[in-house]
Amino acid sequence: MVNILYKSIQHKIDFKTKPLGALGKLEEIALQIALIQKTQNPKLINPHILVFAADHGIAESGVSAYPQDVTWQMVLNFLNGGAAINVFAKQNNISVKIIDAGVNKDFSGQENLINAKVGFGTKNFLTQAAMSALELQECKQKAAAIISKTIAETNCNVMGFGEMGIGNTSSASLIMHCITLIDLDLCIGKGTGINEEQLVNKKAILQKALNNNKIDFKNCDELLQTFGGFEIAMISYGMLAAAKNNCIILVDGFIATVAYLVAFENDNSIVANAIFSHQADEKGHALLLEYLKAKPLLNLNMRLGEGTGCAVAYPIIKAAVNFLNEMASFESANVTNKAE
Amino acid sequence: MVNILYKSIQHKIDFKTKPLGALGKLEEIALQIALIQKTQNPKLINPHILVFAADHGIAESGVSAYPQDVTWQMVLNFLNGGAAINVFAKQNNISVKIIDAGVNKDFSGQENLINAKVGFGTKNFLTQAAMSALELQECKQKAAAIISKTIAETNCNVMGFGEMGIGNTSSASLIMHCITLIDLDLCIGKGTGINEEQLVNKKAILQKALNNNKIDFKNCDELLQTFGGFEIAMISYGMLAAAKNNCIILVDGFIATVAYLVAFENDNSIVANAIFSHQADEKGHALLLEYLKAKPLLNLNMRLGEGTGCAVAYPIIKAAVNFLNEMASFESANVTNKAE
Repeated sequence: MVNILYKSIQHKIDFKTKPLGALGKLEEIALQIALIQKTQNPKLINPHILVFAADHGIAESGVSAYPQDVTWQMVLNFLNGGAAINVFAKQNNISVKIIDAGVNKDFSGQENLINAKVGFGTKNFLTQAAMSALELQECKQKAAAIISKTIAETNCNVMGFGEMGIGNTSSASLIMHCITLIDLDLCIGKGTGINEEQLVNKKAILQKALNNNKIDFKNCDELLQTFGGFEIAMISYGMLAAAKNNCIILVDGFIATVAYLVAFENDNSIVANAIFSHQADEKGHALLLEYLKAKPLLNLNMRLGEGTGCAVAYPIIKAAVNFLNEMASFESANVTNKAE
Repeated sequence: MVNILYKSIQHKIDFKTKPLGALGKLEEIALQIALIQKTQNPKLINPHILVFAADHGIAESGVSAYPQDVTWQMVLNFLNGGAAINVFAKQNNISVKIIDAGVNKDFSGQENLINAKVGFGTKNFLTQAAMSALELQECKQKAAAIISKTIAETNCNVMGFGEMGIGNTSSASLIMHCITLIDLDLCIGKGTGINEEQLVNKKAILQKALNNNKIDFKNCDELLQTFGGFEIAMISYGMLAAAKNNCIILVDGFIATVAYLVAFENDNSIVANAIFSHQADEKGHALLLEYLKAKPLLNLNMRLGEGTGCAVAYPIIKAAVNFLNEMASFESANVTNKAE
């Protein structure tokens, strides 16, 4: 059955008025989406980008170029429509939802913010686990509820995942190292833009955090609890929930890809639903994508997070679906096909 | 003056609510477009993709996987809206104009086709020059007239250039070799998808064509006359005309980039207006882009021509202009900037 479907989609792609394979990666994406939706005529319905924001205890150890207050300030910027993700999502008719996963700020009165606050930031993992087992469970439940509600309300079948959280590249680097076993130093980059001296310091701090926390590298929940951010945990479980609901999942940059990595460790089958939007200009991302055998759509040296890679890449995904649905075939257009 | 403008644009980019440089290539494009338009608030107006179609005498020597009739059949497909370029342009609100630069077919009665026919295909450059000096002049005049008319009628300030013409990778490979002096074999690829045996044959034919035509490699007009296609010549001169009219020029794949190469040889200043949309999956293109020090926006293994790379990349260019115009600054959004 799957084989018949696969063949019928590939046949439809191959007999469009173009040389065989001439649309390259667009053909792969068209095939993937058609297989997710089990149809030759897939549709992208009400795409959403969910931006999860949270604070990190490790920020107090000086791993970022920006103060922790920037997390809540940027949340307000998102809500006011002034951030990059707002601009790119608006351009491409993508709905944006901003989620307080655990920012160190009381947002009472912010009606357009989805309140899924698990705490006022994680604890500093230099000295203790970032969150409790209970808090992690809360992340899981709240993420799944947001996905269910979004789908129920909008029929959305494309879900991008973005993040905001000063300090979260530190969290992501440690999780990446523990799962991939790639040298920790290679997993650590400049984040929002620290200088060489600050980078040396960041590496020393993360090495210390690793030494201080003796954990089972193969236990994803233990990993998220120890080094996670609330936003990373919610994205990871949110992706799993979205895949279970048959959504196309758009993976953003370094941090979102680490969240995907954890989701993938939990359930490999998520790969069928995932589209990697871009390769970010954060050091560990190229290696992580390689580890995942993922070939992202874009490489524009972006390193902003917020789901901006998903938003900028979205028109390419739309182009893939559109050519499959709208292009003429050799037969319908009376164009002579290649003599084989 | 230019320096003050440059600094004011760069300042505007740097104080958007994002880490310095975090939008990577989008920041470069925003700066380039703002400099072309000499304003901090650039606008993209009525983007067009002009698709020039023509036939090639060399096609009779068996260099392509498709018969020559496919050129005119595809022209009708363009006019009927069934080709890839139609789908992608429609998605991104780009106007498409189809130009008969010299197809081997009488198109009488096709009202939506722009008639700029210079001949019913070029001559076979295996034995003689592809076109006369007079025909080349005709290409130049007709291309400039189309650009002028398009701008006068629509106020368009973004112009993409695409092509269709069975046999035109052969033409492009020879022109690339003569200008760049890169080994001829490295300039020759599989075009629409010939097999290994046909590729060996194509290389032998093009080497023979090179031996048979003793020309001055540094004379661009002589080159276009000898190995050119009507569409390649018109694109090359069309790009120069568009740049003189202060348009942003979108460069498509291998053949359009060779046309750009000739334009660049004629007037280096065109580089300020050119945006390279994608790296095509045609052998010579990567080397040609390297020669031109051009870093294209996309690398999706596409190799279709028609201006499809321009159309698929266009939303990225729009994203660059949009963030410059619409994103909040640290000041306007009350976000704390990095402590330096």
